[in-house]
Amino acid sequence: MSEKTFAGNYFEDFRVGQVIRHATPRTITEGDVALYTALYGPRFAINSSDSFARALGLPRAPVDDVLAFHIVFGKTVPDISLNAVANLGYANGRFGVPVYPGDTISTTSTVTGLKENSNGRTGVVYVNSVGVNQRGEVVLDYTRWVMVTKGDPAAPTPEPVVPQLPDVVPADSLVVPELAIEQYDRVLAGSPFGWNDYAVGERIDHVDGMTIEEAEHQLATRLYQNTAKVHFDQFAANSNRFGRRLIYGGHIISLARCLSFNGLGNAFTLLAINAGSHANPTFAGDTIYAHSEVLDSFELPGAPGLGALRLRTVATKDHPASDFPYKVDGRYHPDVVLDLDYTVALPR
Amino acid sequence: MSEKTFAGNYFEDFRVGQVIRHATPRTITEGDVALYTALYGPRFAINSSDSFARALGLPRAPVDDVLAFHIVFGKTVPDISLNAVANLGYANGRFGVPVYPGDTISTTSTVTGLKENSNGRTGVVYVNSVGVNQRGEVVLDYTRWVMVTKGDPAAPTPEPVVPQLPDVVPADSLVVPELAIEQYDRVLAGSPFGWNDYAVGERIDHVDGMTIEEAEHQLATRLYQNTAKVHFDQFAANSNRFGRRLIYGGHIISLARCLSFNGLGNAFTLLAINAGSHANPTFAGDTIYAHSEVLDSFELPGAPGLGALRLRTVATKDHPASDFPYKVDGRYHPDVVLDLDYTVALPR
Amino acid sequence: MSEKTFAGNYFEDFRVGQVIRHATPRTITEGDVALYTALYGPRFAINSSDSFARALGLPRAPVDDVLAFHIVFGKTVPDISLNAVANLGYANGRFGVPVYPGDTISTTSTVTGLKENSNGRTGVVYVNSVGVNQRGEVVLDYTRWVMVTKGDPAAPTPEPVVPQLPDVVPADSLVVPELAIEQYDRVLAGSPFGWNDYAVGERIDHVDGMTIEEAEHQLATRLYQNTAKVHFDQFAANSNRFGRRLIYGGHIISLARCLSFNGLGNAFTLLAINAGSHANPTFAGDTIYAHSEVLDSFELPGAPGLGALRLRTVATKDHPASDFPYKVDGRYHPDVVLDLDYTVALPR
Repeated sequence: MSEKTFAGNYFEDFRVGQVIRHATPRTITEGDVALYTALYGPRFAINSSDSFARALGLPRAPVDDVLAFHIVFGKTVPDISLNAVANLGYANGRFGVPVYPGDTISTTSTVTGLKENSNGRTGVVYVNSVGVNQRGEVVLDYTRWVMVTKGDPAAPTPEPVVPQLPDVVPADSLVVPELAIEQYDRVLAGSPFGWNDYAVGERIDHVDGMTIEEAEHQLATRLYQNTAKVHFDQFAANSNRFGRRLIYGGHIISLARCLSFNGLGNAFTLLAINAGSHANPTFAGDTIYAHSEVLDSFELPGAPGLGALRLRTVATKDHPASDFPYKVDGRYHPDVVLDLDYTVALPR
Repeated sequence: MSEKTFAGNYFEDFRVGQVIRHATPRTITEGDVALYTALYGPRFAINSSDSFARALGLPRAPVDDVLAFHIVFGKTVPDISLNAVANLGYANGRFGVPVYPGDTISTTSTVTGLKENSNGRTGVVYVNSVGVNQRGEVVLDYTRWVMVTKGDPAAPTPEPVVPQLPDVVPADSLVVPELAIEQYDRVLAGSPFGWNDYAVGERIDHVDGMTIEEAEHQLATRLYQNTAKVHFDQFAANSNRFGRRLIYGGHIISLARCLSFNGLGNAFTLLAINAGSHANPTFAGDTIYAHSEVLDSFELPGAPGLGALRLRTVATKDHPASDFPYKVDGRYHPDVVLDLDYTVALPR
Repeated sequence: MSEKTFAGNYFEDFRVGQVIRHATPRTITEGDVALYTALYGPRFAINSSDSFARALGLPRAPVDDVLAFHIVFGKTVPDISLNAVANLGYANGRFGVPVYPGDTISTTSTVTGLKENSNGRTGVVYVNSVGVNQRGEVVLDYTRWVMVTKGDPAAPTPEPVVPQLPDVVPADSLVVPELAIEQYDRVLAGSPFGWNDYAVGERIDHVDGMTIEEAEHQLATRLYQNTAKVHFDQFAANSNRFGRRLIYGGHIISLARCLSFNGLGNAFTLLAINAGSHANPTFAGDTIYAHSEVLDSFELPGAPGLGALRLRTVATKDHPASDFPYKVDGRYHPDVVLDLDYTVALPR
C-alpha cells in the first residue's frame, strides 16, 4: 500500500487521553433532510414542517436528532473504527442545541479507555466524541466503545483503563428544549397521546415493517460520510464470513426511531442515548420491525409542559414485533438486531 | 396491538360530511426537488431552472405539480387508506397556486360519499382532499375514492351516498398561471411544438422506458410520507397474493409524466386531473413506457398566449408503447398500469 | 413514431461549425449536493463544509467539480449522444469559476469535427461543449467525441474534419482559484500531504471498493438529466448484447474521484480533464476500485501556495487496485473501466 493511503488506526495506535480532531466538517442542508425523509419516512411534525416548528418558538424545523447523531458519528469512523471488528456499545449520549440546515458540524474525540482482549489480537477502545456546530455549541456528546484489531500482534499491552459510565444519563444533565409547548398541535403531530398517557412498563408494538435494500443503506451511510469498508464492498465481502455487505448499525437506529412514530408520535425529540447495542448484524433484504417499552417516566426541571420517558426500543429482523422478542436466557433473541435505551421528551 | 398504535380507519369509521385534518404538515425543499429529479428525470425547464422561471415572471422555479400532488396525497394515507384494498379512482383535481421550496403543505379531507359493497366486507369511501400552503392558499383540490376493509363485518351498512363528480374539470374552474409567456424559450425548453401544433385525436408514443428498482419506489414513497404498508414490507408481502411489494400508483404517474416530456415538452404545467385509474399493479423490475392521446384542445380565458390540452396518458409495463396498448373488449390490456386523464397548459 | 417525439440526431444531422444551444437549464441546489454525497461519499472538506470554504475566502462551499461536469454533460446528451454507440474520449477540459448552490447552468456545443467510419454505418462527432452559469461565466469547457449511428446509411459521407486537441491542457490556460490557502487546515481536510509530498511517477492504491447498485446509477444519471436510454431500460436491454443496463461512464468518474480521497485528500479541486476513456463497460453489481499515478507536477503561476499535479486515475471492476492493473500489450486490462488523465490543485 502507498504511504499516502490511510489504513486507519489500530489498537496500539490509541493512547488514553489522546484527543483526535476529526476531518471533514459537514454543513447539513435541506438536501440531507430530504434524503433522510426518503430513506426512513420520519413523520415527527417538528422536523417535517417549518410552520409547526415556528409555532413552538423555533426559527425553523430542526433536523432529526438521529440524523445529527449520524453526522457526528460519521466523522469519527476514519480515525476510530476503520479497523473495528465490532461496535460494542454506546453510553452517556446527551443531545445539545438543535441542528438546523446550514449548520456545520465537526467532531472531536478523546480516548477515555483501552483494554486489550485476552487473545492479544484485539482490544476495546473507548472514545468520548463531541459534535459541535459552527459556533462551537455542543450538539451531541456521547461515548462509544469498539473492538479494534491490533496491527502488530506483538505491540505491547497497555495498562487497562475502563471509564466509568452512567447506566442512564442523569435527568439533571439533560438539555431540555425551550419551547412554547402550549402551541403544540397534537392533530397535526399525528398522535393524541402525551407524556401523562404512558405508564412505566407499558409496551408498544410499532406494527409496521420496512425492508432494506442495498442501495438504501449505501446511500445513507455515504450521506453520513461513514467510510467503513464493510458496508460498501461486495467483492471483498464475498470472502468474509457473511458473504454480504453489513448494514451500518445506525441505519437500524433510524428505521426503529421512524417506525416508533406509530405509538410514540409525540416523542418529538431525543434528549439522551443511555445505552445501545447492535445485537445481531443486518443485511439487505431484512425487514425491520420495532417495539418499545417505557422504562421510566420523569418530569423535566424548568419545563412544566414537557415530560420525559426513558424507552427501550428493540428492532427485529424478519420477525414482527407482536410477541415482543427481546432476550432468551439472558441472551438476545437471534432476530433482535438493536437494543436502544434512550430518553425522549413529550408534551404532557 | 397496543392501544397507542394506530391501525388506520376502517370503512365503518367514516361518516359522510366528516372533516379530517391530516397530520404531518410538510415543508417542501430544494432537497425534495433534487430527489424528485433523481427518481424520475423530469426535464420541464420551468421546474429545472430558476432563470427560466424568472424570465416568465415567477419568483423562482416552482416544484413539479406531480410532486405537489404526492405531498398532498401522502398526508391523507394514514387516515384514509391504511386499510385500503384498492385506490379506485381520481376526479375533479384542480391545481391552484404554484408550490415553491420553502412552502409548507397541509391537507384536510372531507368524506363526500360512502357505499358498502354487496359482499359486506368492504366499502367505497369518497374523499375530497384539499392541500394548502402556509398562507392557506389552495395548491391542489381533488377527490379520490378507495375501497376500504370493514374492521367489524357486523358494523351497520350506511346509507349509500355517491358524490356527483364531473367527467372533466370544467375549463372555467381551472386556475390558469399568469406568466410572461412571450418570454418562453422553446429551445431551452427542449421542444419546438406549441399548443397550435397538437390536434385532437393525435397520439404520441413517448418511446423511452424506465425500469423501477425496489429502492427507488421505497425512497419516493417515504419522501411523500405515504405510509401504506404494502409498499415497504417484503416479509409480510411474502404471504400476500403477489408475493411482492406493490409500487405506489403515484410513482407510475410521475414516471409517465416525465416520459411524456419526449413529445409533450412544452406541456409545462398540469391544470387538472380529470380522472385516473391504476389499471394493474406494478412491481420492482417492471419497465414503464407511456403513450398519450390528445382528447381535447381549448383556449384558456384570460391567457391569450396559452392553450390547454386534455390528454390521456397511458403507462404500460414491459410493453413498449409503439402499438398504443389501452383496452381490449372494454377492459384494460393486462400490460396497462395507468390511465390518466388530465389537462395541461402549453404556450400557443 | 410520432413526429412529436425526438429520436435524437444521427451522424448525418451534424455539420462542422454547427452550434447547438442545449435544452433544460438547470439550477443546482443543496439537494443535488446531498444526493451527490449519498451517491459517492465525497470527503473533500471544501465541498463539504461552508465554514471550511469561507476560511479560504469563498462565499460558501462550492459544489464538487465532477457534479458540475455531469450537469454540463447531461445537457448535451439529447442532442449529441442519444444515438451514440460509444463515448470515445474527452480532451481539453478546463474548469472555470466555481459552481455554488443556486447557480443555473446551461450548455452550448459546437461541432468541431466529423469523420465517417469506413463501415459507412457510423461516424465520429467531435463537440466542444461550454457550460456557463446564470451570469454567462464559464464553469467548464471541454471537448468529447462520440461514435454516432447514421440514421440513413445512404446519407453522403462528409469531408472528414478532426480537430487539433492538446494532449494536456496547458498550464497557462488553467483557471487557478484565488484562495486564502494559508488558512487551509490539513487536519480538517483529512490528509497531511501537500503538493510537495508527491513525486512524479508515484503510484497510489486508493484501497477502498464500492459496489454499484442499479438504483444508484439510475438515480445519479437522472439527477444529471442524462437521458441515454441504455442506462434505464432493462426490458430493451434484455435483447442487447450485454443483456444489462449500462452504467453511465461519468458515474465511474465520480466513484474513482471519491475513492481517490484516500491518498489524495488535499487534491481539493480539478483544474483540467486532459484525456479520458471508458475502457470497458460497467454494470450493477460491479465493485469499483481505483489507483492513481502522478504524471506531472508543476507550479501554478500567481498562486504561490498551490501546486498542480497531473494525475492518471484508473478505475477497475472486481479487481482491487493493489497490483495497479492498467494495460497489457498496449491494450486495457479487461478489468480496467476508466482511464482518466486530469490536473488537480493542492496546497503546497
